[in-house]
Amino acid sequence: MKDSNCIFCKIANGEIPSYTIYEDNMFRVIFDLGPASKGHALVLPKEHFKNIFSLSDEYAAKALIIAKKVVTAMTEELECDGFNILQNNEEIAGQTVFHFHIHLIPRYKGDDVKLTWNPTELDKSTAEQTAKKISERIKK
Amino acid sequence: MKDSNCIFCKIANGEIPSYTIYEDNMFRVIFDLGPASKGHALVLPKEHFKNIFSLSDEYAAKALIIAKKVVTAMTEELECDGFNILQNNEEIAGQTVFHFHIHLIPRYKGDDVKLTWNPTELDKSTAEQTAKKISERIKK
Repeated sequence: MKDSNCIFCKIANGEIPSYTIYEDNMFRVIFDLGPASKGHALVLPKEHFKNIFSLSDEYAAKALIIAKKVVTAMTEELECDGFNILQNNEEIAGQTVFHFHIHLIPRYKGDDVKLTWNPTELDKSTAEQTAKKISERIKK
Repeated sequence: MKDSNCIFCKIANGEIPSYTIYEDNMFRVIFDLGPASKGHALVLPKEHFKNIFSLSDEYAAKALIIAKKVVTAMTEELECDGFNILQNNEEIAGQTVFHFHIHLIPRYKGDDVKLTWNPTELDKSTAEQTAKKISERIKK
């Protein structure tokens, strides 16, 4: 299903032009207009899903296979040194367009991209019980 | 295939104990011992792949389906407000263990996790040609 108010639906389906580096019947991969680094691309499904929580299994099964193809070709072409593959869900996580998308961010030696965090320490007094509770929810 | 020197192979296959929140015949999902936020988890394949560049299509097809299940259950249990799903490839990108893994990072209102970048502007004078070159490599 498409959402007629969604800009990524329009881009993915070719109604709005983009710099397309890959396209098949389910996905389009384009250059991000505000790249973190040279070659920063977005994997867009042609169907509308708000984010990972509503993504269909059919699309989930294909997205990383396409990401792999694209980052492999980009590494050869752009001679980058690594990749961050990032997918943000909800505003708090930095999602700004509410159509599922995966960022493919090429990394170069000496670049100023910083996608890291300050590690804390796992609270081992509650970890086992929390793991069990989540596990039980998954099984439902 | 497993790598007998790889700590994530050992954890994924249960030779080293972990706080496991999901397990099937292909994957184990565990709590990160140095979490960015409460509930930070890692999706680990039981086979050894260095990173996305060598990940098999079979595993690529399952990884996001499992990520979706886990983040859905975690959102219910932990009452988090969003998720960053991040997968790092090569040292420059922050990969520290060279066994493919996906970070599932719960986000909470007011947390201090910051996985963002300073956007630059796409160089439109070269974008079309670069897109075409990458596209041709993918088709090979």
